[in-house]
Formats: sequence, structure tokens, C-alpha cells
Amino acid sequence: GYSGRTFWRWAVTAALGIVTGCVAVALSQLTNAIVAHRRARFGGDPGTMRSCILFDCLLACLAAGATTLLAPGAAGSGIPVVKAYLNGVRVRGCLSPKCFLVKFFGTAMAVGAGASLGPEGPLVHLGAMAGSFLTGGVRLRQTMPSFFRTDIDRRDFLSLGSACGFAAAFGAPVGGVLFALEEASSFWDDKLLWRGLVASSLAVFAALALDHGIIGLTKLSHYGLISLGGSDPNVSVELLVLAIPAGLVGGILGGFFVRAWALLERIRRLIAERSYSSRPWRVGARTAEAAFGVGITTLAFLAVAKTTGCVQIHEEDSEGRSHAWTTDSSFAVRFGCDDDEVNELASLWFAPRENVIKKILAGGAFSASSLFYCGCLAFATLLLVFGTALPGGLFLPLIYCGACLGGAAARSTKFENSKRFQAPAQRHLGVLGAVALLAGVQRTTVSLVVIVLEGTGNVHMLLPIVATTVVARFVGNLLSRGFYEVALHSKNIPFLEKHVPSNFDRKFVADVMKVPVVLTRLTTASAASEVLHACSHGAFPVVSSDEGPEDPSKRPLAGLVLREHVAALLAHRRDGRDDRRDRALSSAGWDGPQTPPRRLASGPQPLDLGPVMVRSPYVVYADCPLSRAYRLFVTMGLRHLVVVSHEDNSVAGVVTRADLAGCLHS
Amino acid sequence: GYSGRTFWRWAVTAALGIVTGCVAVALSQLTNAIVAHRRARFGGDPGTMRSCILFDCLLACLAAGATTLLAPGAAGSGIPVVKAYLNGVRVRGCLSPKCFLVKFFGTAMAVGAGASLGPEGPLVHLGAMAGSFLTGGVRLRQTMPSFFRTDIDRRDFLSLGSACGFAAAFGAPVGGVLFALEEASSFWDDKLLWRGLVASSLAVFAALALDHGIIGLTKLSHYGLISLGGSDPNVSVELLVLAIPAGLVGGILGGFFVRAWALLERIRRLIAERSYSSRPWRVGARTAEAAFGVGITTLAFLAVAKTTGCVQIHEEDSEGRSHAWTTDSSFAVRFGCDDDEVNELASLWFAPRENVIKKILAGGAFSASSLFYCGCLAFATLLLVFGTALPGGLFLPLIYCGACLGGAAARSTKFENSKRFQAPAQRHLGVLGAVALLAGVQRTTVSLVVIVLEGTGNVHMLLPIVATTVVARFVGNLLSRGFYEVALHSKNIPFLEKHVPSNFDRKFVADVMKVPVVLTRLTTASAASEVLHACSHGAFPVVSSDEGPEDPSKRPLAGLVLREHVAALLAHRRDGRDDRRDRALSSAGWDGPQTPPRRLASGPQPLDLGPVMVRSPYVVYADCPLSRAYRLFVTMGLRHLVVVSHEDNSVAGVVTRADLAGCLHS
Repeated sequence: GYSGRTFWRWAVTAALGIVTGCVAVALSQLTNAIVAHRRARFGGDPGTMRSCILFDCLLACLAAGATTLLAPGAAGSGIPVVKAYLNGVRVRGCLSPKCFLVKFFGTAMAVGAGASLGPEGPLVHLGAMAGSFLTGGVRLRQTMPSFFRTDIDRRDFLSLGSACGFAAAFGAPVGGVLFALEEASSFWDDKLLWRGLVASSLAVFAALALDHGIIGLTKLSHYGLISLGGSDPNVSVELLVLAIPAGLVGGILGGFFVRAWALLERIRRLIAERSYSSRPWRVGARTAEAAFGVGITTLAFLAVAKTTGCVQIHEEDSEGRSHAWTTDSSFAVRFGCDDDEVNELASLWFAPRENVIKKILAGGAFSASSLFYCGCLAFATLLLVFGTALPGGLFLPLIYCGACLGGAAARSTKFENSKRFQAPAQRHLGVLGAVALLAGVQRTTVSLVVIVLEGTGNVHMLLPIVATTVVARFVGNLLSRGFYEVALHSKNIPFLEKHVPSNFDRKFVADVMKVPVVLTRLTTASAASEVLHACSHGAFPVVSSDEGPEDPSKRPLAGLVLREHVAALLAHRRDGRDDRRDRALSSAGWDGPQTPPRRLASGPQPLDLGPVMVRSPYVVYADCPLSRAYRLFVTMGLRHLVVVSHEDNSVAGVVTRADLAGCLHS
Repeated sequence: GYSGRTFWRWAVTAALGIVTGCVAVALSQLTNAIVAHRRARFGGDPGTMRSCILFDCLLACLAAGATTLLAPGAAGSGIPVVKAYLNGVRVRGCLSPKCFLVKFFGTAMAVGAGASLGPEGPLVHLGAMAGSFLTGGVRLRQTMPSFFRTDIDRRDFLSLGSACGFAAAFGAPVGGVLFALEEASSFWDDKLLWRGLVASSLAVFAALALDHGIIGLTKLSHYGLISLGGSDPNVSVELLVLAIPAGLVGGILGGFFVRAWALLERIRRLIAERSYSSRPWRVGARTAEAAFGVGITTLAFLAVAKTTGCVQIHEEDSEGRSHAWTTDSSFAVRFGCDDDEVNELASLWFAPRENVIKKILAGGAFSASSLFYCGCLAFATLLLVFGTALPGGLFLPLIYCGACLGGAAARSTKFENSKRFQAPAQRHLGVLGAVALLAGVQRTTVSLVVIVLEGTGNVHMLLPIVATTVVARFVGNLLSRGFYEVALHSKNIPFLEKHVPSNFDRKFVADVMKVPVVLTRLTTASAASEVLHACSHGAFPVVSSDEGPEDPSKRPLAGLVLREHVAALLAHRRDGRDDRRDRALSSAGWDGPQTPPRRLASGPQPLDLGPVMVRSPYVVYADCPLSRAYRLFVTMGLRHLVVVSHEDNSVAGVVTRADLAGCLHS
């Protein structure tokens, strides 16, 4: 039957989908407004190049400055922090309303300034934040039913939100759900999968309806912010062969990108540690870095566009290729060319990226050289701006580069003269190029394939897309680790992959466990406060105080208590019973920030930890294979696992996420 | 890096995909050959009706007889048994080579005989069996690397195989993976998801290549056995409104179907218990039942076709509707009509179901009444034959019924006269009808949506499909439980849903645990043999024999030993050390059949259980919430969970799958 709880859960799920869809459209509209303004103002004349660079740098300064000052967690794509949260690691300041606003406006400004960044990653982050807000992240918690305050619900809604953000960005509901599923580490059951699909579909529908105006909506098509072109059933089998070189190039470029990015990140960190330790310096340096990256991007594109790229305006050439883009006044710009000409490269640069991708994949007749320049410049400048304080994601620039390079390959002489490939070559190679680059950099796999599938609306492309992904992923893995893995590692986040490392079969829990700090169930305020001051552990095994040997480490385990609950008990002198139900669930890993005890009561007053502890935590024995403990950790989303001894159920040790992560990289 | 183990795993994954694709094509070819023969022989003249019924009954007798005699596990769709296996319950005789052969030929004969059954469910079962064989189910195990002999690998390949079977049947690689993911209860990590996608894609490609002849393959299109028609970007937004009545009807019909089927199944069981207990009687009765169902099906269709359905042969009518099917000599049959006429209903009946679905969804101008008769008859006879000893699945007949009824609705006067809906109505309503029926009966959700999406090749249908599924599922859930749930329950399989039942939060492990039968680590052969004879438990907690109190139930837990390992130890007098590594993994639930001890050595010889026991099984405390234990069970695929006491790590009880399943339905 459907209880009130189920009803509320579905209602909030639906609301989350609609809200995320609206956020996606608002972000896209704001970005496009900036891009359109920039294009109208600077697109006509190369003489305004300097002011264009100035304009872009100003926008970048604003975005980067706001991020560094107000919400450093908003920088970058945000997918790594969402991944970390869903994996069980809470990164601070990444889910606040301030972060939401900074991310929203910062992304619009960064993408609007022409930086090689996209709104897809930020939308995942924004969706996750929306999910967090709707379940009690902000003051709503008083009015919401109390069951949403459990951390399990919060985490579920966070992953639903990220699925919605993704779905709205790409118009790919199934892809969004799969993305959340591939990244969310914990317990996904059928019902959550189903709720995810409904929420994502609503997000996509809300985006579609808002974008067309609710009255103007007549056809269900072109959902997402990115459209990868319409369906085309004529997919030749030769495309499967072309998947191999495409994947090869994508894998090599992707591996190179990840390695170069990791190097830059290390340099950034080194400089940051050495040169500026004070806050104003840091803000200034981060802002300048972002402005520099954006300025260089604009300069590079415009400088090349100034010297090359003028083409005649005409509808169709003698070989039947469509030059319709040259007459599209919302796309083509003159940028100093003659009256009957437009500047190809400037058009590709000033137009919104989504439009460019669409035009390339629709087979618009751009020259191979322009596409090649565009792809190379976008790839190089992506390296420059991704990693600065600017909010913005990887997907759009990678798809842009891939489509440009794939299109350039299709326009090159060999393909132009081959009868077999000619007609669909640009479209298909563009898609394969985008897939190859995405797979080469990110290595996410199934969701990536589904996104592209849904984005292109063409299931017949499936086999070539899978083949390209296989090759690109394989080659990329030979050259470097995946981007997210590197990004999480560089942020020192103890991330646990879902896949159990093979060497864990030969290790045992005893090899990694740490000596525990235990509390006795019936203790005194002063003793507990002493323990809390002496170490920074997030949780403490509680041993029985009934009887048994004098040495607490020989007494049997009675439960597990979180640091914050002991601190709350000491600070407020309450038994904490009222919110035990919610908090007890959080014991398994979704505990809050490790607050230092405030207003600690100390002294010989007795303190009973019984009401706040979890009475039956997950436990393992010391001779348990590490692989089994790892599985328990990642599947149940644990943060602490108590190791007990066979003989007397006494506490032998504690395994934490950091212990396992350390073992992972050794 | 890529180790030999990784290489072999991928090689077998690829082989599994290709093999399953080939099996799918072979099954489809064989079925189509039978259908074509039947059509050529009996399609022209109603005078041959009697011999047609005889022919069909004969085929049904063959299929049902072989199933009942040789492999009773091959009856039905096979999806429930695959679900059960992946959930951790081993149903006997469902993965043998004999079962494979019976399933393959039986399905071809049953579908060929015109029974309302399809090859999709059997293909999932066949794929799972192929996966089981490739990883040591048959004699290959000597030549394969030993790591494939672990039960985890076997289970992984089984779910990969079912994904491949599904993918090949529908031409839906992503849908196949999602299906396996939604059904497979245990640990799915990213790498398995990815392997699943590659295997499914290979299965689909192999099917495609074989079907076209490898040389003739030029275009990558129409993969699967069922094609739901080409893409069509003109999906009007009104379809979202039509999703509500479609879902409503689908949910009601589906709920009714499940209830009626459960009733029939109960009657079958009652009759079986009362009347025939001997084997020959059982075989005879089951065979007769199948033949009766098939005979009635043929009789009903042909009797209606005889009295109605003659239409003029013409290409196109005055309103521009395509009557091309009347001139398609591989589709239309005369069945007693005049020279310039064909019999509509007989054509719909004699042609392969896949073709009919394709023609309806392509907008072929059939009359509303013929489609309505067809849909109703197919639905009624589905109830008659599904559940008999015939192998065959639900998908195809449900899609057939749904497409017929949806098409009939589209051809009804209201729609015919409405300008807005006319053009795509038949196609779109047909798809919605199929979705509604599938969702109403099966309630599988995300994978269902994806299958239809991939099958139709039309992502623009996504929102209406999701809306229909939501409504049908909701209405269906009000009327009955889901089909698979009912089927598993009627077979007395202790199936555990992935979703934790909400009332389990308020129960504790102590409420359901059973009194354990413990073994002492250092025991004697006679004592162990006595325990094995005295009870039928599948596993025994082992307590330490070092010291401690005299009462074994007060001694600390040392490990968990499986019945079969104790039996092997007693029978063969070996210490079992050589295969301990593989077997140890199986302890968590994938243990083999509970063999009675053979050639038991008994007597006072000492027996050390140490080498064969799992030293650190998963344990919980008696005051653990049942929801937590349930989660552990379904996520880790356990069969036995030892409950220990806080005080001294002594064995307080054992929780089994049956205990939890019993609590589920109470």
C-alpha cells in the first residue's frame, strides 16, 4: 500500500525533478544572453578585440573572485565532490545555499566569457544541492516530515538530484539515472532506480516545457541543452572500423589531458603552499589565474580568426554541401570580412557552443582547417582554464573539441572523395570524436554511451559508439588513470571505488586496522571529555561496563558512538534520546562534521552512552579477508568498522575509510 | 594493469555475447521456419482447419512432453528461475545442458505452434545457461583457468548471459544490461556494468551479422528479433495525455491477468496434489493440458477468421492509408476469401508475431475490429497456455496484444476523424498499448522503458512511455502484486526483494532467528555424522574447542562450515584444503545442493573442521534491527547469517533466507 511516507517521498522526488529542470533552463538562458550580447557587440569588427578580451577577463574575475571569496567549493565541475559525498566522504561547504548561488551565476559568467567550460558538471552539482535542500539542508526541516531528516534519505535525494541535473543538461533521463547509479556507491534498489527515472523525466519535461513556453510546446523533441542532432538510420557498417582510429586518438588525447592536468594541479598546489598563505593573496592569485586563462583563450581564437576564415555567403556549393549556416544571421558573424563574406572561425567562436555542435553534426559545410583550429584551440585552452577557480564542467568543451576534430577528419580530402562515407561522414565522425574524447578523459562508460545515444536520438549508432568507447578507454587506461580518480586523489579525498581491488583478497583486516580508542558505556563526563580532546576520531567503540576484566580493551563490545553525539551529550546535558532514531541511521557513515565539543561539562558526573550509541554496529573479525571488509564498507557506505576478537567479542581495532584508501594506493 | 585474469574474463565475456547472439538467431530462424511451413500449408483454405489444429497440438505435445519428461525446469519463461538464482536461491535442474536443449527446441515448437508465447524469456534463460556453461557448468572446467570456478564469477557470468539474451531478443544492449541489473540482487560494480554492455553489444552485433549474412551486412539497423518500427520525430505532446487512459487499461488488464494466473496456478497445484501422484500420469496430464491450450488457441483464431475478415487487395485507400500489407505475399493469406481479397484476421494470425507487430506499428491499415479480436483472443489464450509445461515467455504476446489493442483504439472512429492525432496515432498508441500491458503485468520498470526506447529507436517517445508506465504500474499495484513476485511465491522460492520492507525497521534479529545447531571445531567423525543426519541445515556455526565452558552453545564462534564440506570431509577423508579458496567464497550463499553424506566415516576418529570452515563469516548481534540484517543478506547474497551475543561472542542463533522471506509475507 501507499503510506504517507511513500506519498511524501514521491512528491519531493517530483518537485526535485521539476526544480532541477527549471534551474537548467534558467542557467542556459542566462548564459545564452551573455553570449548573445558578446557576439552582437564584438562579432563584427576585429578592432574591438581588445575590449572583447577585457570584457571576458572582467567576467572571469567576477566569477573566480566570487567563488574564491564566498564558496571555494563551487569551483570546477562539482562532479568530484558529489561523487565523494555519495561515496561517504563529506567535503565541507559544497552543499550550502551560498555555494548554489555562486555556482549558478559563476557558471553562467564563465561559460558566457568564452572559457572552454560547460554547464553540465555544474548542473549535476546544482541538482545535488537542490536535492539536499529539499530534504532538510536548509530551514525547511521544520515543516517537512521528520523521516526526511535521515541521512539515507538525504543521500538518496542527493543522487536523485544529480541524476536530474544530468538528465536536464543532456535531455537524457536514462543516462542521468545511469550516471547517478554508476557514481553513487551505496544501496540502490529498484524503487530508487524507478524514482530516479521519474524525476529525470520530469526534469527533462520541465526543461522542455519552459524552453518552448508551455503553450508553444507541441512536439516532444530536442529536450536537452545539448542536442547531438536528429536521428539518421543510415549508419554504415564501416563506421565500426573507423571506431578504432577514433578511439585511439581519443584515448591518447585523453590520457595526455589527464596527465597534463594532474601536473598543472601539482604545480598550482606547490606555488600556493610556497608563495601566498594569506587570504587576500590567495583570492587575488586565483582570480588572476582565471582571468589570465580566459584572456588567453579569447586572444588565441580571435587572433587566428583575424588572419583566416573568410568565406563566401552562399546556400549550397556545387557538390551539394549545405552552406546554410553562412546565411543564418544568428550564427554567422563578419568579423572584418567583406560584405559578401562571413568569418568562419569567428562564427564558430562567438556562437553558443551548443549551436556549433549542432551545426557540425547536422553536416554544415565548414572547412577542415577551421574545424581543426577550433578543436585544437579549445582543447589547449581547456587545459588552461579547467582547474582554476572558475565554476564549469568538462562535458561541453570535450564534446565541442571532439565534434570539431571529427568533423575536420570527415572534411579532409580522403573522406570527401570517398563515395561510401561522404553523406553521413561528418555527422557520424563528429559523434565518434566526441565519444572518444569523453571516454578518453573520463572513462565513465555505460552512462556515457547512453547519454550520447539519447542525445543523438539514434540507436543505430550504438555499436560504433560502444566500440569507440572500448578502444578509447583501453588506450586511456594505458596512459593514465581516469580523470575523476586523479581529481579525487589530488584533493586527498579517501574515495573508495566500488570494484574490490584484486590484491585485497590476500590481505586481512588485521593488516590495516588501527588501535582503537574505546569508551566505557557508563563513564564520567570528565573521562569522555578527555578522550574527545585527546584524539580526533569520528567514532568510538563502546565497551560494556557491567563486569569483566579491568582493562577496557578486554571487555566485550556494546556499541559504537559517534563523536558528535558524545559532544552533544556533554554540551547540552541531555540524553539525546529524541533524535536518536534519525541519528542512529547516520552512524553507518553519513555523520556530520566532526565538531569540537563546546561548553563541555566535565567533572565526575556519570554519563550513560547507552541511549546515543548504536547497539549493533557492523563488525568483522581480525582474520577476515580485506576484500570482504571493503565490500561491506562500500556497499553499506560505512565510515568506521569495528574489528572484534573471536574469543570474547572484545574490540581488537577499528578500520576507517582512510585506512582502506591508503591501502588502495600503496 | 591488465593481468591474465582480466584478459580471460574479457575473452569469456566476449565469447558469451557472441554465443548468445548466435543462439538467438538460431532460435528465431527455427521458429520462423515452422511458422512459414504452417502458413504455407494451412493459410489458404479453411477446410484444412482441422489438420492445422492437429498439427499445432502435435507440436505442443512434443514440446510439453519433452519438457515434463526430460527437464521440468525448462517450462515457462525461465526468468523467475534466473531471478531466483541471482537472488541466491539455487533451483535444481534449471542450468543443465539437457535443460538448454529442451528449452531451445521446445520454445521453437511452442511459438511455432501458434501458442501465445514468445522467445524473449527463454532467451534470457538460455543466455544465463550459456554463461553458466562457459564458466564451468560443464566439463570445460578442467581446461579453464581455475578462477572461473568461484561462485561469484559464475553468478556474474550468469547475469551477463541473461543480459545478452535479453539484448539479442530486443536489439537493446542497454536495456539488457539494465534488466540484469534490476534483477541481479548482488554486488554490481562499474566493471560488471561495463562488461555487460560490451557483451550485450556483441550479442546484438552477432545476431545482426548472422541474420543478414556477414557479407550482406551494410547498415547497422534493425538489430533485434522484435523491431518496434523506425524512428519518428513527430511525437505530439497530446500523447502525454493519452498515456493516462492507456496506462489505466494496461494496469487493470495486467492486475487481472496476474490474479487470474495465480488462481489457475493454485488450481493446477490442487489438482496435481489430489489426482495424479505417479510420474506417467503427471507427464500425460501436463502434456494434455498444453495441447489443449494450443488447440483452443488455434480453434478460436481460425473460427473467427472463417466468419469475418475478408478485405480487398489494394495499395492505398482514398484517405491515403497504406494497405500495402494486402499485396505482401509473405504476410497476407487468403484463407477462403475471393481471388481479389485476403483474410485480414488469418493474415494477422498466420504471420510471425514479430512481423505483425512491425506492420501495425508501421501504420498498416488494418480494421479496428480485426485488431480488437486479435488482441482479445491473444490475451485470453495467453492465460490458457502460460503456466502449462510449454517453454515460452510473456514479452512477445503482451507486446502483440498491446499493439493490437492500441492499434484498434487508434483505428476507432474518434481518432480517425481527429486531425491532430491521425498521422502517427496507430504507431504511437500501439507502442503505448504494449508498454501499458507490459508494465501492468510485470512491473519491471526502468529496463522496460529502455527496451521499448531502444526497440522503437525513438527517444522522443520517452516521456509518454514513462508516463504510461507510471500509471500502469500504479494501477496494477493496486490490483495485485507483480507477476514475478507472484510466480516466485507460487513456486515457494524464498526470494528477497532488494527493497527493505518498511516494517523491518521495527523488528530485531532476535525476533526471527532460529536456534542454531553448532559443531565444535575439533570433533569426531561420529559426532559430525550424527549432526548431519539429525538435521537438514545447509550450514553450521563452528565454535571454538580450545577452552571455555562445557556447553558448546556458550563457547565463542570460530567460523561457519557448509554442510557439503563436512559431508565431503566425512566421505573422502581428506582435509579439503585444495579447493578451500574457491569454496570459501561460496560460503556466503552460493553453495551447492545439500547432498546427503555418502559413505560416511563414523567412529571416534578426530575431525578438524578448521581447514574447511570460513573463519570470519558475517555476523550480527541479536539486537540488530532486522532491516540492517536484511540489507546485508540481499547485498552480499548470503544464505546464512550467524547471530552472536554481545557478551562472549557465543552463537545465539542463525538467520536464514527462509526466515526473512517468511517474515516478508507475514
